[in-house]
Amino acid sequence: MRIQGSQFHTWSRLLKQLPPAESTISKFTLQKSTITINNIAGVAENAEVVLNGWIDKKPKKISKNLNFGLLRDHEGNTLQLVDTKSLLKHAAVEDVVQARGHLSPKKDSDSALELKLNSMTTLNRSNRKPSELQDFKETGDYPPEYRFLQLRLHKYQAILKKRNSITKSVRDTLNDQGFIEIETPLLFKSTPEGAREFLVPSRKVDHNSKRPTFYALPQSPQQYKQLLIASGVNKYFQLARCFRDEDLRADRQPEFTQIDLEMAFSSANDVMQVVEKLLVPLWKQYSASNSLLTLNSRGRLVSVDKEDPICHMTYKQAMTQYGIDKPDLRAPDLKIMDLTEFKARGYTNKDFPVFEILILRNAFDSKESLQQNASYFNNANNYNSRVPIIVPIEDEKDANNWFEKFMTLAAFENPKLISKFLKLKKGDIICGSTRQHSFSLFENPTPLGRLRQLVLDSDWGKERYQKTNKDVATWVVDFPLFSPKEKNTKEDKKYDYPSYCTDAVTSTHHPFTMVKLSDYEKLQTNPLQCSGQHYDLVVSGVEVGGGSTRIHDAELQDYIFENILQIKNSDKLFGHLLRAFRMGTPPHAGFAVGFDRLCAMLCGTESIRDVIAFPKSITGSDLVVGCPTVVDEKTINMYNIRYNSKS
Amino acid sequence: MRIQGSQFHTWSRLLKQLPPAESTISKFTLQKSTITINNIAGVAENAEVVLNGWIDKKPKKISKNLNFGLLRDHEGNTLQLVDTKSLLKHAAVEDVVQARGHLSPKKDSDSALELKLNSMTTLNRSNRKPSELQDFKETGDYPPEYRFLQLRLHKYQAILKKRNSITKSVRDTLNDQGFIEIETPLLFKSTPEGAREFLVPSRKVDHNSKRPTFYALPQSPQQYKQLLIASGVNKYFQLARCFRDEDLRADRQPEFTQIDLEMAFSSANDVMQVVEKLLVPLWKQYSASNSLLTLNSRGRLVSVDKEDPICHMTYKQAMTQYGIDKPDLRAPDLKIMDLTEFKARGYTNKDFPVFEILILRNAFDSKESLQQNASYFNNANNYNSRVPIIVPIEDEKDANNWFEKFMTLAAFENPKLISKFLKLKKGDIICGSTRQHSFSLFENPTPLGRLRQLVLDSDWGKERYQKTNKDVATWVVDFPLFSPKEKNTKEDKKYDYPSYCTDAVTSTHHPFTMVKLSDYEKLQTNPLQCSGQHYDLVVSGVEVGGGSTRIHDAELQDYIFENILQIKNSDKLFGHLLRAFRMGTPPHAGFAVGFDRLCAMLCGTESIRDVIAFPKSITGSDLVVGCPTVVDEKTINMYNIRYNSKS
Repeated sequence: MRIQGSQFHTWSRLLKQLPPAESTISKFTLQKSTITINNIAGVAENAEVVLNGWIDKKPKKISKNLNFGLLRDHEGNTLQLVDTKSLLKHAAVEDVVQARGHLSPKKDSDSALELKLNSMTTLNRSNRKPSELQDFKETGDYPPEYRFLQLRLHKYQAILKKRNSITKSVRDTLNDQGFIEIETPLLFKSTPEGAREFLVPSRKVDHNSKRPTFYALPQSPQQYKQLLIASGVNKYFQLARCFRDEDLRADRQPEFTQIDLEMAFSSANDVMQVVEKLLVPLWKQYSASNSLLTLNSRGRLVSVDKEDPICHMTYKQAMTQYGIDKPDLRAPDLKIMDLTEFKARGYTNKDFPVFEILILRNAFDSKESLQQNASYFNNANNYNSRVPIIVPIEDEKDANNWFEKFMTLAAFENPKLISKFLKLKKGDIICGSTRQHSFSLFENPTPLGRLRQLVLDSDWGKERYQKTNKDVATWVVDFPLFSPKEKNTKEDKKYDYPSYCTDAVTSTHHPFTMVKLSDYEKLQTNPLQCSGQHYDLVVSGVEVGGGSTRIHDAELQDYIFENILQIKNSDKLFGHLLRAFRMGTPPHAGFAVGFDRLCAMLCGTESIRDVIAFPKSITGSDLVVGCPTVVDEKTINMYNIRYNSKS
Repeated sequence: MRIQGSQFHTWSRLLKQLPPAESTISKFTLQKSTITINNIAGVAENAEVVLNGWIDKKPKKISKNLNFGLLRDHEGNTLQLVDTKSLLKHAAVEDVVQARGHLSPKKDSDSALELKLNSMTTLNRSNRKPSELQDFKETGDYPPEYRFLQLRLHKYQAILKKRNSITKSVRDTLNDQGFIEIETPLLFKSTPEGAREFLVPSRKVDHNSKRPTFYALPQSPQQYKQLLIASGVNKYFQLARCFRDEDLRADRQPEFTQIDLEMAFSSANDVMQVVEKLLVPLWKQYSASNSLLTLNSRGRLVSVDKEDPICHMTYKQAMTQYGIDKPDLRAPDLKIMDLTEFKARGYTNKDFPVFEILILRNAFDSKESLQQNASYFNNANNYNSRVPIIVPIEDEKDANNWFEKFMTLAAFENPKLISKFLKLKKGDIICGSTRQHSFSLFENPTPLGRLRQLVLDSDWGKERYQKTNKDVATWVVDFPLFSPKEKNTKEDKKYDYPSYCTDAVTSTHHPFTMVKLSDYEKLQTNPLQCSGQHYDLVVSGVEVGGGSTRIHDAELQDYIFENILQIKNSDKLFGHLLRAFRMGTPPHAGFAVGFDRLCAMLCGTESIRDVIAFPKSITGSDLVVGCPTVVDEKTINMYNIRYNSKS
């Protein structure tokens, strides 16, 4: 970067003083540390050592000639400084210092050492701010604009190091399996049918329309990696930066990292094997429990290994049993039950005829605990659409007449039979709602699926229903290839059924996914009944990654673009893929793992912000550097654009 | 990505036919290869094998029942197919096939094998295009829109693999030295004093000015890595994507990758040691010559090793001896000579008083060879400013009167003395030009420096003056911290002296570079005479990377922003750094290596395009996917911007 100055003639008319030479030069004259605090045990007693670090706390004056200080080094370890020379007299919290002295055993300890200071250089003086923010230091929860102070804490230094180790493991494993990492462009092309993309104005003007042109930042390297397969690459991977300009939710970032991979001449099974070989060892090495569980063929929780690979569950199983396509199997037995067999059925919406229930056994001991939890589960803000009806069983009468509470929703031919089967007891909670037919289950999560999620997110629910604290993995397969487009009806649809367009479908994942071969002919007759060759890896209710066998046949891909998805300018948008498919692109399949989320899970933290050095805020701002910012109009004019007149 | 379709009702009114099930399904039903061509030697004769790959050439019909084909697998190796069943009858070049058959020895060879085809499945049929482009395949030089065909060639597959290996070596070495890789944001803040940045419109509107806001893509992670040092990180690195929206030259890319590193509590020497430990082994492992040379203390070319680390050369030495700050030391003795001591001096511009010469000994044998080369070196298009005067010595007279040709530029007090010293002979060429005083050498390259570069870029010059074909490395240190701003005078300044503003300086590298401590006081009196603590690593005339000791003192940094560079809103632009510096940022230094260029050098290719999977064209377009593109106005309106009215 070249920065332009001006008024070269006026060095004498200085606005600021050049800081005094002596003090500045001493800040830049440093010796290397001879040791880190972690290693001092091995140092000969009374050896002189040099330690660089920060003043961790305000030094304490013990007597006229004795100060105690605390030095923190770059690993976040601390050492007591003993100062008989008033060297610490003016030291402030977070001063950067170089301490020289002798190590000696602490008086009150058998093993701990302290440093008797001989001399100390202040390499950079801190202002009072870190000291004012000391309270945040204790909780670890600094305001985001002080991220650089937060990251100095041991916890965050450990996370940064762990993320580096995980990254290295990922790359080593994939390299060992014959994958090569290839960087793909970030200045890509706008294909606006997807999620909202970030645009990058270019200075080029389209020579036909005379309009300005734009790059787009990629949502994933999907298209480039398919082009790499067309380019003869056999096994590709990349830790790739991806971008989405979506309205941010608590745990979404506008830029994020994924482990992206693709294999030529391969099918879903090959990819799933690679992913298991990649991820299972990461859980064994890095997660808090050093293990990863799955369900075996008898539905028992077992550790994933050769005999018990990660279980497979169809989308339909996941949706009917757990009400969501990413079931949290740490509570494998907390299942939703379809009462159709018992001749109960919903009647309020003909597309949602299935009445289903979720029973929370031994859910409450007292009225108070009940009210507390029920209000949380009843809160409509926690739901996308309908809130399930929640019926606590407070006595014998409730146990027999529970169904009456559901009669606004469902008709029961033989409620007594059901009661006999359900065996409700005082302290149970029965929750009920309706859903679509099993063969066209598109509402995801269902109201009960969402309720189950809320239960398992609460400490109360975890304690009662989770069978394990360890992570539990499953593959989810046989997703619908297409989904009907949801209608945007009234603004507050929380209490309503979702409704779907009858004349438009969207790709459930992306338009490059291959149909299940057994459903091939249905592409013509009933696309919504087609399953795709897509597979998600779900761990403890989190979609860790997903992948699919891709289409490599240009005519089939074109058919899906034009006839099913009704994309008008598909050749303009995706012509590069179609052209490549027509010149010898082999069959291929691939996968992508959300790497930030993976790191957060392996680091045992809830928020992906903890594992990103400089995360964006929920409004997409970087509060450390202060961006995005206004840019002067002259600059944006270079891109042949200008502010909207109203702005 | 979710793609929206429409007209769900009209499945019957199909525009395109669904491709027939049978042929499509067979394309997706594949067996794994049992072997690669590279490994067939170990297979038992007559074993049945499965090989996946491409039809490399149009099959040859030998007789009615015999076709020969050539299969190429993903490693780019080929195997002869022997077909007695007319399986290859309709095969086209670049068809993707699965071949099953028996291996048997080739009739006309002792060791080579061929595959007797039992059956073959076409996994994807290619159109005629690859066959039409066969001529490009032979040269390897496909039109850029067919990059995916080009990358299938063995050369490019090898480059992709080699880049992956180099990447891995870099990461392993840095990890072993205690560096951790940390990803920094790509949605950064616009700091428009630098090179032109790419902007990324955000949907946020600034609440004060009501104007739209923008992110900028980073030119390098410089500011974030300094913030990481402020965050207590001890040794950071990253293979980082960087962006510059500059007018592209032949070998510039708008996005590129650099090895970026930074070390806390460290100085220039620490960083240079790390860089040598990182890069020297790469040259030994990956370069064609498996070695890296440098100059020893006696000016001899020696292999870099512990006894002979990479030599150091000051900016002044480089500029006076080689006329450029990135000297090509493969011709260490081809040096420029300052004739000031001989009382020759330039008189046409008082700021360019030094007359200097470069002698090309034994440069030509005949008039023809002379003319050919001289016209190349005389071509003003190859120079930024003045073209040197070039005087071939064709006879004894020329050898004595050479100086007369330079008298339009320089005055000579005692030309005979100089002649005696120069010992010019028939066949030599003497080139002369003027330059600035050694203490304010800002024209870079000088005319003779540029000429020297042209000589060494030519095959003719390489042959005559290069002492080695191996790469030769040097450190260049003691750069001027600031440079005067060049005036944009007339458009064609090729024949003119550069002229400089007297009232504006720019940072020679960037504004975060620390001044040499011995020059500290000159910041106040004469900034242009200050050297910076910056160091470039130059290999064979290429600036492989550069780094510096950074300023970590907020007051000094602020002084440089405001008083020297006269940046008015420095706190707005760089406040994040100043704030961090004021809260305990340790001393630090770092480095960045241009990774694409490094890979190109190690792969022995001239163009960085060869080592980038999907490079942009010289106009910044991706010709494979076709971007940048026009975006509809509704989309850009979301960002509160619109097309310029004139567009």
